[in-house]
Amino acid sequence: MTWTVTTAHLDALEIGAGILGTGGGGNPYLGKLIARKFVAEGAEIAIVEPDDVPDDAVVASVGGMGSPTVSIERLRRADESVNALRALERHIGRRVTHLVPSEIGGSNSTTPMVVAAQVGLPVIDGDGMGRAFPELQMETFAMYGVTPTPAALCNHHGHIVVFDNIDDATTLERYARAVTIQMGGSAGYAFPVMTGAQLRASVIPGTLSLAVRLGEQVLAARRAKTDPIEAICAVTGGRRLFAGKVLDVERRMTGGFARGVVMLEGFGDRLGQSVRIDFQNENLIARDGDGTVLALMPDLICLVDSDTGAPLTTEVLRYGLRATAIGIPAPAELRTEVGLRYVGPAAFGYDDVEYRPLPGSYANRDGSA
Amino acid sequence: MTWTVTTAHLDALEIGAGILGTGGGGNPYLGKLIARKFVAEGAEIAIVEPDDVPDDAVVASVGGMGSPTVSIERLRRADESVNALRALERHIGRRVTHLVPSEIGGSNSTTPMVVAAQVGLPVIDGDGMGRAFPELQMETFAMYGVTPTPAALCNHHGHIVVFDNIDDATTLERYARAVTIQMGGSAGYAFPVMTGAQLRASVIPGTLSLAVRLGEQVLAARRAKTDPIEAICAVTGGRRLFAGKVLDVERRMTGGFARGVVMLEGFGDRLGQSVRIDFQNENLIARDGDGTVLALMPDLICLVDSDTGAPLTTEVLRYGLRATAIGIPAPAELRTEVGLRYVGPAAFGYDDVEYRPLPGSYANRDGSA
Repeated sequence: MTWTVTTAHLDALEIGAGILGTGGGGNPYLGKLIARKFVAEGAEIAIVEPDDVPDDAVVASVGGMGSPTVSIERLRRADESVNALRALERHIGRRVTHLVPSEIGGSNSTTPMVVAAQVGLPVIDGDGMGRAFPELQMETFAMYGVTPTPAALCNHHGHIVVFDNIDDATTLERYARAVTIQMGGSAGYAFPVMTGAQLRASVIPGTLSLAVRLGEQVLAARRAKTDPIEAICAVTGGRRLFAGKVLDVERRMTGGFARGVVMLEGFGDRLGQSVRIDFQNENLIARDGDGTVLALMPDLICLVDSDTGAPLTTEVLRYGLRATAIGIPAPAELRTEVGLRYVGPAAFGYDDVEYRPLPGSYANRDGSA
Repeated sequence: MTWTVTTAHLDALEIGAGILGTGGGGNPYLGKLIARKFVAEGAEIAIVEPDDVPDDAVVASVGGMGSPTVSIERLRRADESVNALRALERHIGRRVTHLVPSEIGGSNSTTPMVVAAQVGLPVIDGDGMGRAFPELQMETFAMYGVTPTPAALCNHHGHIVVFDNIDDATTLERYARAVTIQMGGSAGYAFPVMTGAQLRASVIPGTLSLAVRLGEQVLAARRAKTDPIEAICAVTGGRRLFAGKVLDVERRMTGGFARGVVMLEGFGDRLGQSVRIDFQNENLIARDGDGTVLALMPDLICLVDSDTGAPLTTEVLRYGLRATAIGIPAPAELRTEVGLRYVGPAAFGYDDVEYRPLPGSYANRDGSA
């Protein structure tokens, strides 16, 4: 099914992508505002399913790289990723035919919309993470055989950096991260380039419509005054891990990332209980007061406002907020051996923690929840 | 005059470029060995004067970027700068017609020879520094109006990074340095691209033949058992600043540079006297025991072996070496207002030190020595 993005879709996407951003991924609100403006002015953004993309299509992912903390302080111009796309096209000597989000969580869900509205290309219903992750090599495209370069970066000054002949995405991540930091902590990117066939072999399908549906259900619960947490769990296949209030947030910027810890403490029935969540842009691991692991990457640990279901990104967390931590099973593509090598606990420095999958499945996909 | 490089020229260039490297610039020995091999195998490297380059020539500078300390530990493959040149050509869609050294001091004197031998292009007798400097924006090309990008980097794995649309060389330096550090501290580059007319407006002419002549005179003095220091001063317009032995060397790698201090102490007549030289890859400032400045950038502070005139780079300095510090007036192009902005004391963080030019002129060029 091909559909066209409406402003209502964008409002829902902002919420759904925020939740799937697991605390990071950048704030989708700013991108939504820009995409809304383009759509209100008549831009048509077509969403197509991976199965409808021709085998010989030229698909590229576009998005933003950097620290979410920077991107909400220094607003993007909206043409960074467009310029990165144009630099990439110039480098390969071909025009791109389709855009695909690299990560459906956070701002990289709306950035492809902003680009699509300007360049008139369709966006694929799917992405390379099914959530948000802090580093480039954590995309399923690279995990499942797409060469990460050529890749292009562009910042708000129009400075262009093109990477080529780099086989592994982890090396590209190091180079591109170093440049992004020198660019002030925020840049638009276009990469990787893949055929329609490669896309189908590596994409996590249906995540754009999942994020829209998730947002729509949260909005519906608010209108119906039913429990938005319930709605989130129903759509995503997730479960409540803990509900409490924010006791403390430690945040620091290191290596271009927002790293830190958020502490939740229980109240009412849960008085005296607590949960500690470590993050590197995104929430990585949730542990209770005894150190027992409640959930860990690549499963999604989503903090939302307990009353409204609104996503709480790490940069808006503050003392006293009433927050619910929801655990959502990671997409099957991330739970494979190759997936866990790139996005399992060891990939984030938790060498001594074994991945124990949350029960159920991402968006109830195989019905085993 | 156009001339062809011989192995004897390369042996002399190694010494001359080492002296003009002012302690840094990378060791020209390794590049010389590679260039010698190509010349011995029949490669012809033509050296042409800037005045003989057509106005519409496509001139590019090629060289190596990184810390000299790294480049003597991890040897270059010899194709890094060739691959950077090819990436640059591919990006601009034109073939380069002439190569120009960016810095005649140190290894970037021989790197263009190594590239020229492989790609068959002529090398221009001149460079963008007349010595060595640690950073990209310290080239006269950028100072005198050449846009620094497009620029290309390539490392020993063949990883390519192309920079474009960056107006100022200081920004390019930041980006390229960050990538070079991620590449392990050493990379080949090709940049900037300029016309023959732009070359003539920005190059320091005649420095390749100067470096060869300097090396030849040192070798001649050794053969004749005359004073090589005298020979160096005569060719370069320099003067002895101090002769002593190396008392101590402090070296550290920070931000991709070899930074530190070398202490010389006098013996014989100069017992009790000392000189302290600060370096950032290259020697920056020489001060006596009272803190009186003897010489400072952009003037050249060259440490050579007191007996042989052999250049002493910061990475080979060690306790007990008998060393002479020679001060050479900087090329006139670096002593202008724009020159001093990029390579004067303040550009190296010495905000409180005023530049007082050494008397005389670079290579006795205007005869005022």
